Amino acid sequence: MKMIQQAMMGIALTLMLTVSAMAQEQALASSDSSTQHADPLGSWNDGPTKSSILQFVQEVTKEGGPKFVPPEQRIATFDNDGTLWCEQPVVQFEFAVYRIKAMAGDHPEWKEQEPYKSVLAGDPQHLVDDLINGGHEFLKVMETSHAGMSVEEFDRHVRDFFATAKHPKLNVAYTQLAYTPMVELLAYLRANGFKTYICSGGGIDFMRAISEETYGIVPENVIGTNGRNVFKQVDGKWQLFKTADHLFFNDKATKPTGIDLHIGRKPIFAGGNVRSGGDIGMLTYCHSNTLPSFQLLVNHDDDEREYAYAEKDNASLKTAKAQGWHVLNMKSDWKTIFSND
Amino acid sequence: MKMIQQAMMGIALTLMLTVSAMAQEQALASSDSSTQHADPLGSWNDGPTKSSILQFVQEVTKEGGPKFVPPEQRIATFDNDGTLWCEQPVVQFEFAVYRIKAMAGDHPEWKEQEPYKSVLAGDPQHLVDDLINGGHEFLKVMETSHAGMSVEEFDRHVRDFFATAKHPKLNVAYTQLAYTPMVELLAYLRANGFKTYICSGGGIDFMRAISEETYGIVPENVIGTNGRNVFKQVDGKWQLFKTADHLFFNDKATKPTGIDLHIGRKPIFAGGNVRSGGDIGMLTYCHSNTLPSFQLLVNHDDDEREYAYAEKDNASLKTAKAQGWHVLNMKSDWKTIFSND
Repeated sequence: MKMIQQAMMGIALTLMLTVSAMAQEQALASSDSSTQHADPLGSWNDGPTKSSILQFVQEVTKEGGPKFVPPEQRIATFDNDGTLWCEQPVVQFEFAVYRIKAMAGDHPEWKEQEPYKSVLAGDPQHLVDDLINGGHEFLKVMETSHAGMSVEEFDRHVRDFFATAKHPKLNVAYTQLAYTPMVELLAYLRANGFKTYICSGGGIDFMRAISEETYGIVPENVIGTNGRNVFKQVDGKWQLFKTADHLFFNDKATKPTGIDLHIGRKPIFAGGNVRSGGDIGMLTYCHSNTLPSFQLLVNHDDDEREYAYAEKDNASLKTAKAQGWHVLNMKSDWKTIFSND
Repeated sequence: MKMIQQAMMGIALTLMLTVSAMAQEQALASSDSSTQHADPLGSWNDGPTKSSILQFVQEVTKEGGPKFVPPEQRIATFDNDGTLWCEQPVVQFEFAVYRIKAMAGDHPEWKEQEPYKSVLAGDPQHLVDDLINGGHEFLKVMETSHAGMSVEEFDRHVRDFFATAKHPKLNVAYTQLAYTPMVELLAYLRANGFKTYICSGGGIDFMRAISEETYGIVPENVIGTNGRNVFKQVDGKWQLFKTADHLFFNDKATKPTGIDLHIGRKPIFAGGNVRSGGDIGMLTYCHSNTLPSFQLLVNHDDDEREYAYAEKDNASLKTAKAQGWHVLNMKSDWKTIFSND
């Protein structure tokens, strides 16, 4: 007991000192700006979405209140592509193309061999046709670029990509395409005792390379698509190698599977977006929680500042309406979208 | 920035108040007992194992020291059966037998049908023979008792089992077979900023039902054997159902796979035990960490207070010797083994 107290006191003092140092820094930085009341969701416009979020968090953190949820149950899961950052284009596919191009020197046969030929030529038609026919060629591109190397080597490739690649239209690094209001929301939830997770169709190792610096989400809180990696000795060194065996595609109805495997608790807060219906499963799972819960669905309706797109069948918006989920309209709900706006 | 400061200050103040309340409670509680220096590993005998652990933790937590490891990298993974609690008999198999017996009323055909016939008759020979021949019958028993129901229903069965079943020889609840020195070690590591995980061949959902109350390990920090669960609507209710599809057996060389999938970081502390060589993979993986690391191998040599057993080929002890891992001998290293000793 005494040891725990000492440890906690140590942590408390460290926090105090850090806060004090940060306050000094900020005092210097903001000495010429007028101070305002701290708004945890400062880049959100006032309106029903923002106030619903604030109200929910206040209710579940109010000890003794009728909707109080103990901290260990405050699990929040968020889709990544289109929910936490821009999915036009899908960043991970850009990475796959980047890798195929980098690997092409060792594979002269790819010049004449699909799907590599089209990828190298920058011609999307072959893969578009393939995706309609089951996506086997697409999977081949993903497997070639994502498997067959050690976990460490893959991590280096991803970091190299993010250090150099830029968004084709906005001309900024892809990590700068994180939505500022969502980064704020994640921090606000964590400040209120939530554990925040990514739960995405994106590759688990791909996202982990940037999740902490981009969203403050630690690697162990990332859930994503994965193959079953193999531990083996290569060149006298035991290493984990990436494979596409037993591929688990963490999307749609399998997102609850991924959440249960990694967390073992239902989320009380889940965020997803409109595009393919990929988050209906996760939001339904969250909604089935017997504790108070909140479902947030991002609707892309801002073709000026981001993109405007919808689902063919509107299933996500229809389900949201039927279930009482909260729809976030980027155009009206967000004051700013990107950090460099 | 200001919001983060406020949140941190809030956390710091909460910690201060908690510590203060704890100190008051402790002052009341210990006013009649003579105080001793707090020993975080009080049920361990003094000796090289205990002092090596204390030294390692002091070194990796000493800021500015040559072996300092930042808190986010302080990952500790422990096998469960034979490492954190007694594995004679293997508790989860006792649960499987308990479930087969409970289900037998709905399956009169099992009286004449192997492997159920032998399980119901309490005759182990059929499964012993089967395990030598690939274990298909054994897997059938596990699948019948562990799959085909919702995650919630399975959790209730496990909790019912632990509430009623007793160890055949020691006549206590199975959760009381947790090793007190290991429970202390887990708490000591957490007090020093470690995140503690179970990484076991046991079923992930089985262990999660008792990991928090038994070890202080939260469900999201449990890694284990699992099938791929399915999210579906049954009786108008969306639920996750347990399956044995894509069974991932988290043992031997696949423990690093499980750790990487769930955590995405290598452990700096790993604990396993001698029996089947099941933890050599995990300890090798930990040992491959470029950060300072510690490998602990439990040797069961105490047939009076627990059990004495070894591996046929002694692979774990041989590897430990070759790699410089720390061998824990229960007989000499532990002052007490169980909480009711």
